[in-house]
Amino acid sequence: MTTPVKQRRILSGIQPSGGLHLGNYFAMMNPMIESQEKGLLFCFIVNLHAMTTVREGKVLRQGTLDAAMDFLALGLNPDKSIFWVQSDVLEVVELTWILSCVTSMGLLERSHSYKDKIERGIIPNHGLFAYPVLMAADILLYQAHIIPVGQDQKQHVEITRDIAERFNYLYGETFVLPEPRIDPHVALVPGIDGQKMSKSYNNTIEIFAEEKDIRKQIKRIVTDSTPVEAPKNPDTCTVFKLYRLFASPEEISELDKMYRKGGMGYGTAKDRLYEKIRDYFKPFREKRSQLAGDKEKVKKILAEGAEKARAVAFPTIEKVRRKTGLAYK
Amino acid sequence: MTTPVKQRRILSGIQPSGGLHLGNYFAMMNPMIESQEKGLLFCFIVNLHAMTTVREGKVLRQGTLDAAMDFLALGLNPDKSIFWVQSDVLEVVELTWILSCVTSMGLLERSHSYKDKIERGIIPNHGLFAYPVLMAADILLYQAHIIPVGQDQKQHVEITRDIAERFNYLYGETFVLPEPRIDPHVALVPGIDGQKMSKSYNNTIEIFAEEKDIRKQIKRIVTDSTPVEAPKNPDTCTVFKLYRLFASPEEISELDKMYRKGGMGYGTAKDRLYEKIRDYFKPFREKRSQLAGDKEKVKKILAEGAEKARAVAFPTIEKVRRKTGLAYK
Repeated sequence: MTTPVKQRRILSGIQPSGGLHLGNYFAMMNPMIESQEKGLLFCFIVNLHAMTTVREGKVLRQGTLDAAMDFLALGLNPDKSIFWVQSDVLEVVELTWILSCVTSMGLLERSHSYKDKIERGIIPNHGLFAYPVLMAADILLYQAHIIPVGQDQKQHVEITRDIAERFNYLYGETFVLPEPRIDPHVALVPGIDGQKMSKSYNNTIEIFAEEKDIRKQIKRIVTDSTPVEAPKNPDTCTVFKLYRLFASPEEISELDKMYRKGGMGYGTAKDRLYEKIRDYFKPFREKRSQLAGDKEKVKKILAEGAEKARAVAFPTIEKVRRKTGLAYK
Repeated sequence: MTTPVKQRRILSGIQPSGGLHLGNYFAMMNPMIESQEKGLLFCFIVNLHAMTTVREGKVLRQGTLDAAMDFLALGLNPDKSIFWVQSDVLEVVELTWILSCVTSMGLLERSHSYKDKIERGIIPNHGLFAYPVLMAADILLYQAHIIPVGQDQKQHVEITRDIAERFNYLYGETFVLPEPRIDPHVALVPGIDGQKMSKSYNNTIEIFAEEKDIRKQIKRIVTDSTPVEAPKNPDTCTVFKLYRLFASPEEISELDKMYRKGGMGYGTAKDRLYEKIRDYFKPFREKRSQLAGDKEKVKKILAEGAEKARAVAFPTIEKVRRKTGLAYK
């Protein structure tokens, strides 16, 4: 690797859906925001991928704007990073077609996420099947080096590498081979039922919900039936696990003692957790309100981001057009 | 049908490959050139489709320019029709992705031409599988009414109709449903071995080959071993069948008599055929030479064609973006 660390390109796609929750925040958003210091971040809203499951125009449109406002509010810096909406750079679908022609059917048929969907009884559309090719085009068009992924997405980066190697073999060295990066330190965030927090389990605490709704979600956290006066075990308590994510070492130690001493009800711990979450996200919520009141600004940021992304994509797609003979001029 | 005949849109894709032969000319090119009088012709060089099989940049590049010069020489009128290179209008790959998301895998798995390729032992790439979706995007982006096809391509237009109906059902009326048109009067052109003329049988007579090579190809036409002096049957003779395509009724009747009377060798008939073909294509060959000497003009025509095509595509893709929610502005 000869690319200086600061210039390494880190690429992440984000879903155009609302209802961001603490699980997303700690597993994905926060690391992404922090990665802006470690390289050049390419972050885009994957509205084309979302079309494989979203069938309502207004849901996709609103989800796209919501995702943009969420990320800008949480610290995505459009001056430092490149932040755009996937479909605003058409070259990515051009490259998707080109890569399709060097991608064997077998490679796509072996995709875990496609097979999982089939097994879960989803009637497959061709977009679901072709999903990894679009993802490969996203990564290769911007010659990204590092792709932060969860374990379940690792295979998609491997498919991208396979496709890139095949293209490079057929047409000569063209694409950087990206590396998946799985963060081993990613926080495990429990949902209000104690399982992993996930929208599909309906157990989330939402970041940008109304404060009273966040309070309600916290009130619903499942605890055991230890009576108020009895000592409690913080290590097995979802409230405590969530509190640890926000509190200082001193605060954690203090609450830990209150658990073990007895005489404190879970309601008290929930109140402390609520206050922490409220205070932690307060500046982000304010920023988000400002953005929601100035949609034109958000659209302008996205338009400028698309321009920057296109400028990066251009030399690569031009090279691809020359090598494949699509450029006939 | 309320669209006036003159405004009906006829859409045809042409392969970016050289070596055009008499079979192509009578089955496809001549009807296409003539269709310019019957509606608004959209004719484009399918370089994106060709990528499913062509792996060499210079072959695709040269094939694209050759196809452009061939068609312009043979009478495709860029002032009357819209003539462009497929990949120059990127919206077609955008629409391909969008349509992929409403296309069931089953529909593509049932494609005859895909199944045929598998059966012929071709290792399938994903582009071959997705071929009908790109074809649907070609047709629907330009809201074409009439798609002239051979029997083997009819299913592709049916797949396009299925995809369009599905999109219209999910997102509201958007696309015109195209009609395949199979010309029942299309001339059957025998190759020099008597089978259907086809590049894959290596039995063609090429239109724009050197005159001496055309002469050689004609000399190689297989005839029976009837001696010179004996009467011959014109109805079973490939030379005569080809002659019929070019000659006037009087000339046909005259050669018919010479066959039946005896005393004429097949060489004489071949000479007559050669002269006919040479004279018929002479003005086209001259036009093609001019174009080959002025590539910049050819490229300018294609660039202008792409502009016209994009202008037609624009209202449709904008509507699609609004309905699907890809347009978030």
